[in-house]
Amino acid sequence: MKHVKNIVIIGAGNVGTRLACALNDAGCNIVQIAGRRSIAVETLAKTLDTDFTLSLAKIIKGQDLYILALPDNAMEEVLGELDLTDELLVHTSGSVPMEILIPFSENVGVFYPLQTFTRNREIDLKVVPFLVEANRIDTEDSLVGLGKMLSANVNVADSEKRLQMHVAAVFASNFSNHMYDIAREIMQDNGFDFDLLVPLITETAAKAVEMGPDNSQTGPALRKDMEIIAKHLELLKNKPAARELYDRISKNIIDQTH
Amino acid sequence: MKHVKNIVIIGAGNVGTRLACALNDAGCNIVQIAGRRSIAVETLAKTLDTDFTLSLAKIIKGQDLYILALPDNAMEEVLGELDLTDELLVHTSGSVPMEILIPFSENVGVFYPLQTFTRNREIDLKVVPFLVEANRIDTEDSLVGLGKMLSANVNVADSEKRLQMHVAAVFASNFSNHMYDIAREIMQDNGFDFDLLVPLITETAAKAVEMGPDNSQTGPALRKDMEIIAKHLELLKNKPAARELYDRISKNIIDQTH
Repeated sequence: MKHVKNIVIIGAGNVGTRLACALNDAGCNIVQIAGRRSIAVETLAKTLDTDFTLSLAKIIKGQDLYILALPDNAMEEVLGELDLTDELLVHTSGSVPMEILIPFSENVGVFYPLQTFTRNREIDLKVVPFLVEANRIDTEDSLVGLGKMLSANVNVADSEKRLQMHVAAVFASNFSNHMYDIAREIMQDNGFDFDLLVPLITETAAKAVEMGPDNSQTGPALRKDMEIIAKHLELLKNKPAARELYDRISKNIIDQTH
Repeated sequence: MKHVKNIVIIGAGNVGTRLACALNDAGCNIVQIAGRRSIAVETLAKTLDTDFTLSLAKIIKGQDLYILALPDNAMEEVLGELDLTDELLVHTSGSVPMEILIPFSENVGVFYPLQTFTRNREIDLKVVPFLVEANRIDTEDSLVGLGKMLSANVNVADSEKRLQMHVAAVFASNFSNHMYDIAREIMQDNGFDFDLLVPLITETAAKAVEMGPDNSQTGPALRKDMEIIAKHLELLKNKPAARELYDRISKNIIDQTH
């Protein structure tokens, strides 16, 4: 198993930035930041006091690890411009199979942090689960070792399992945030401060985490209170998208619990 | 404005229990617990070392306040059995108009804690917003005063505003919990521990609270990544209800952000 020391980060978005900083803090040597968005790339390179390039052709060869931290739909194009042979190449995506990297290096893997990343927001990676995969067992060991430098929670998962977990993550994070956002809109339409919902949001998440969401459900749909549900649907008549979701999610909860 | 001291609690469910304990701790005198579920009623009465009755006809008259802490669809039946004249009578519901109480007392109001309550789970009421309404201005003052004994966040809101806020709360709490629960099911179906999602759930809620959910959205729908969305829908083909929600919520996020 090879110890990973010298790393090139390709992509200076939310994930690339957090990983580069955390790996640097953990004692790795971030050799270069590569990417196209000049401000993000230069800012990150300056933060880490390292080299950068806006041209993929100028990526330094022969390093221990190349981390592609790109949106899924940008990966293919960037891969086509890389010129690696047997350098270890990984991506950080939940839903892209490892196999797409194989044409571009003999030594590939995935290094996926199961978390939501937002610009200008610190994340404590130590508690973030990392899902790791590799096409060679020694590479898998290297990536697990690297993961353990950042997090107490490193798991090996193949592309199929990782994709399933990504779908779960979309519900747990992206979709729960959309529910908050509909709530925010209703509050705003009525001249209320969103902050009134903060204790509720915090308690709902804490309760689900501590007791499991299957033991935490409350509300009109759980009680099958069709009168209140009808009243709420009536109130949402001018917001058809929210109304449709209210109706469907309520039916789901009723079907599951009655 | 009359200072509320002696209180009868009708209903020993999650809300009734939490309110009774908090009011007792705040120095009020819980004169009696009334309700039909004998175990819950007796347990609460024993905890507070107070009187209880399982018969609504035996409710002690002439006290300062009667709090109906009942599911919305149980309220009408219980009200029909109450025998009050001008005692202050309030309910604790988000969606039931104050007006339904008027036939049963000359002095009525609402005392609604905007929070999700679950049995055997402590809630710090100090941060919970209370929404208060009354049919008389002196009663409104009394209820605001009572609310301030429990919470730092007491607001006056009429029934229409309270109903709007309740709909927002259903999205922010009941529906976000349902999203967690679908995620839990996907994890379980694949043999993963739900705990892997805990840092994600915690960070998503914290981020929405600190930055606002409109500034916190991430994921495939925000990026309008139709390839990943199609992959996820394909994976959910054996879970039609979850698949339908995935499709609809993704479309909503795309419509809102593109």
